[in-house]
Amino acid sequence: MPPRVILLSSGERPDIVEAVERFKPLVTKHAEIVLVDLFGTADLAAVEADLVIVFGGDGSILRAARQMGARQLPVLGVNLGKLGFLADIAPEEFENALPQVCAGKGRVEEHLMFECRLVRDGKVAAERLALNEVAVLAGPPFAMLNVDLYVDAELATTYSCDGLIVSTPVGSTAHSLSAGGPILRKDLQAVVISPISPHTLTNRPVVDSADREYTLSAPNARAETSLVVDGQLVDRLGPADRVVIRRAPVTFKMVRVAGHGYYRTLREKLGWGGGLAIRDK
Amino acid sequence: MPPRVILLSSGERPDIVEAVERFKPLVTKHAEIVLVDLFGTADLAAVEADLVIVFGGDGSILRAARQMGARQLPVLGVNLGKLGFLADIAPEEFENALPQVCAGKGRVEEHLMFECRLVRDGKVAAERLALNEVAVLAGPPFAMLNVDLYVDAELATTYSCDGLIVSTPVGSTAHSLSAGGPILRKDLQAVVISPISPHTLTNRPVVDSADREYTLSAPNARAETSLVVDGQLVDRLGPADRVVIRRAPVTFKMVRVAGHGYYRTLREKLGWGGGLAIRDK
Amino acid sequence: MPPRVILLSSGERPDIVEAVERFKPLVTKHAEIVLVDLFGTADLAAVEADLVIVFGGDGSILRAARQMGARQLPVLGVNLGKLGFLADIAPEEFENALPQVCAGKGRVEEHLMFECRLVRDGKVAAERLALNEVAVLAGPPFAMLNVDLYVDAELATTYSCDGLIVSTPVGSTAHSLSAGGPILRKDLQAVVISPISPHTLTNRPVVDSADREYTLSAPNARAETSLVVDGQLVDRLGPADRVVIRRAPVTFKMVRVAGHGYYRTLREKLGWGGGLAIRDK
Amino acid sequence: MPPRVILLSSGERPDIVEAVERFKPLVTKHAEIVLVDLFGTADLAAVEADLVIVFGGDGSILRAARQMGARQLPVLGVNLGKLGFLADIAPEEFENALPQVCAGKGRVEEHLMFECRLVRDGKVAAERLALNEVAVLAGPPFAMLNVDLYVDAELATTYSCDGLIVSTPVGSTAHSLSAGGPILRKDLQAVVISPISPHTLTNRPVVDSADREYTLSAPNARAETSLVVDGQLVDRLGPADRVVIRRAPVTFKMVRVAGHGYYRTLREKLGWGGGLAIRDK
Repeated sequence: MPPRVILLSSGERPDIVEAVERFKPLVTKHAEIVLVDLFGTADLAAVEADLVIVFGGDGSILRAARQMGARQLPVLGVNLGKLGFLADIAPEEFENALPQVCAGKGRVEEHLMFECRLVRDGKVAAERLALNEVAVLAGPPFAMLNVDLYVDAELATTYSCDGLIVSTPVGSTAHSLSAGGPILRKDLQAVVISPISPHTLTNRPVVDSADREYTLSAPNARAETSLVVDGQLVDRLGPADRVVIRRAPVTFKMVRVAGHGYYRTLREKLGWGGGLAIRDK
Repeated sequence: MPPRVILLSSGERPDIVEAVERFKPLVTKHAEIVLVDLFGTADLAAVEADLVIVFGGDGSILRAARQMGARQLPVLGVNLGKLGFLADIAPEEFENALPQVCAGKGRVEEHLMFECRLVRDGKVAAERLALNEVAVLAGPPFAMLNVDLYVDAELATTYSCDGLIVSTPVGSTAHSLSAGGPILRKDLQAVVISPISPHTLTNRPVVDSADREYTLSAPNARAETSLVVDGQLVDRLGPADRVVIRRAPVTFKMVRVAGHGYYRTLREKLGWGGGLAIRDK
Repeated sequence: MPPRVILLSSGERPDIVEAVERFKPLVTKHAEIVLVDLFGTADLAAVEADLVIVFGGDGSILRAARQMGARQLPVLGVNLGKLGFLADIAPEEFENALPQVCAGKGRVEEHLMFECRLVRDGKVAAERLALNEVAVLAGPPFAMLNVDLYVDAELATTYSCDGLIVSTPVGSTAHSLSAGGPILRKDLQAVVISPISPHTLTNRPVVDSADREYTLSAPNARAETSLVVDGQLVDRLGPADRVVIRRAPVTFKMVRVAGHGYYRTLREKLGWGGGLAIRDK
Repeated sequence: MPPRVILLSSGERPDIVEAVERFKPLVTKHAEIVLVDLFGTADLAAVEADLVIVFGGDGSILRAARQMGARQLPVLGVNLGKLGFLADIAPEEFENALPQVCAGKGRVEEHLMFECRLVRDGKVAAERLALNEVAVLAGPPFAMLNVDLYVDAELATTYSCDGLIVSTPVGSTAHSLSAGGPILRKDLQAVVISPISPHTLTNRPVVDSADREYTLSAPNARAETSLVVDGQLVDRLGPADRVVIRRAPVTFKMVRVAGHGYYRTLREKLGWGGGLAIRDK
């Protein structure tokens, strides 16, 4: 029986919308299309499906992960921009990849997601899944922000900073990397904590286990201090609020075909290690 | 004739206000007090004076520099917190330092200041002096900010970042250092440009001459993208606005007595190079 | 039955040797001393024992781990210098800690060690256990070194650098941290790869799984290019040599009493996150 | 009268030697060739000339600067590899650039050079000019090196590190950049001091004036601790040796034709600021 598939795109670019149309006949040959959502706005909770195909870039895949919420279906990402970390199938590879995936020959990689709770007055004021990262960011008037980090019961440290990022391995090549964090191989069960512009010289990124609970609070939060999850503003953060981060009960399920080695993607996507030499022999 | 002095403090802490009162009789012995402004709010433009004594920390001195504006008088900083970069006289040293300064035996160090103009619709919408730095900061919703940097007529680069800091040598140990910038000796006629969380791996701080003109614009600025000078929010920055930074016609005039060597201050204030060894022999 | 213990020190400092003598009677009350080796030179292979007590610093513990080789006994580290990551019991805590440990109330933490093989002409020319790190270092004449890194079968990248460090979590606070690597919580099953002075701007530390095999080679190695394990020079490295690193079959067994939280040790030992603020409010 | 020119190459690559031959007739049309030295070994002290044309890369130009010693002639660099910082004329631009330069229409940029003295037993044991940097490097057995830095009469700090680099602005894009230093615009009269793998977390690169004297010593130097100038090993460094660095009486004279803007070269040579984005929108 052919798999039931959902086609998603983020609808921002006409060329992506057009590509979805172009690929539809191909998908129909190998699968049953149960939903096409060009703008990433449909409620997927009630849709029975076996596979989600996302057309776009890593941003579109982050959005798809949000859209699926507690019910993460396997995702195949067709990259319509430059090589992505998540969306790693080029349009010209799709014709070959799709039959394999529909025939069950794809490999599903499960990636750590966070469950992030904003706790206010003893209640859960907001709850989000995160595939990349949870960030507390100072915002205007941009005075020095203090962020207390608790790891399980222990107060690990107080960061004086412009923000603090708690990132999954998948997110380690996103905002955390900009802030100076290391690259974590995607299948590690670990978390990286990277301060943005730490106002002490001694703060360095820390990698810790995904099986601990991380709690953030910002006792000197100002009006615009914010909680941001996967690049989306969740809410302003007050001085008494707490952000509690732990491993989500679900994982992000990435479908891979043969494809690119991990380090090759690093090299091509990040220019990691690549040819921009600064010293001549 | 005894010098005419202004006493300033930022009025935030009762112990500082109390210290000003305590030191007044001492000052009166060596100088003529023409103004006491405990809250840093008086208009100094019309006050004839030879010296400003600031009680507080580096933050109070930044405020004093703002307060003086185009007419920078020599400043003696009495540090009532930990050792400061600018306010480097401890209260217990003040009794010795003051007579020397009033007898003309102090040394005046002149430090580079910036003149920063916010240009909007072809007009100067705001103008500020900066002793530390000029920063363009992304702000909520914290999406990737692009900042174009022009050095004289040349488009130097476009930073994709959380913000960009253009710092004086004095400011190089403040926000710019947090963002990964180098320490510039205070008397250099140079500027350091440090991106905050650059989203490319190849952006590194650049040190260039104080005699060039630096222009910033943020073509994808959002509602909360901000121009911040010496830690003070100037205005939101629109996509068509330009921030023009050049050497100010005035300098900041720091009065030094014998005192601390430059590198000793670095070591004591920053723990720079100091004893937090991470490797055992 | 009291545990059989070995007392080790590295014999470099008279005060350490003297401390061992001073503590002997205390140890005898709770345990049976089967060997005292003040200089860390005895062959421990044939010694039946239940516990090793090391007097000194983290360096002494690295040496003890080498000395035990394939037969790692539980280690209690008494720190006679500043707080150590490994030797975390202060002399004044020893009197309390020892009876607990001898009564079986200590907790044994197992830490990842590497097995490092130098392969030359198809043979194993040297083999070492590593508790901290394996490093390939350029050495005189200090020309740009190329290090190929293979992760399992995949050529990950070629680093142009002054050296490359492959570190355990325990070693992440040692040489790797100096080179810009992140701090890995000690119980992670992970490896951090940190280049020293990478000559491209895009090389950032990578954290990967401890269950992979890492192979290094330096095709342009010069006369003095060296393989260094836990700070000890193993051998010069030729252009055709390969260094193969994998998880050791043994672990390092650290005995902990109540003691310090992990992050508290980071803060006290590294000044991590601590009070050297560079920005005033 | 046509200028008298010296043609230099480093003779390492046959294609460079061949290029020199190919360009000779062109040079003869506009200038008088007084010396051709394909291997960079001739003594130039007695050669009367107006211009040196170097074929090769930045490495060849460093060598030419050494070869000229105290008598620096204007240098035109023809880059036969990738774009260089110093050798910035591509072979295809040479035909246009040469007549302009020979007609006196080139612009000469003067760049800071160091005079570096190795002082041993009160005598100058070695003396070198440096265009890029002076480095003290630990070398085997690679134990932690302590380097004392004196700036004029003041002990600035003691670095515990794998090495210390004192770099000119020209050298700031070479070894110093690898070690984490900032980029200094080439015409600054400044020095950047960058430690390699500092073993404290608080050491950050420092930029100071070119008009000061910098003295390095390594009290715990081992057998292989080395003084390296512009990538060339000068000598082993003993615990009592001192390295004294000051502005050289000569400058490096770079001939520029219209050519590339400074920041464009940064972008093209370093990928500085360039398109390797790590965050998707």
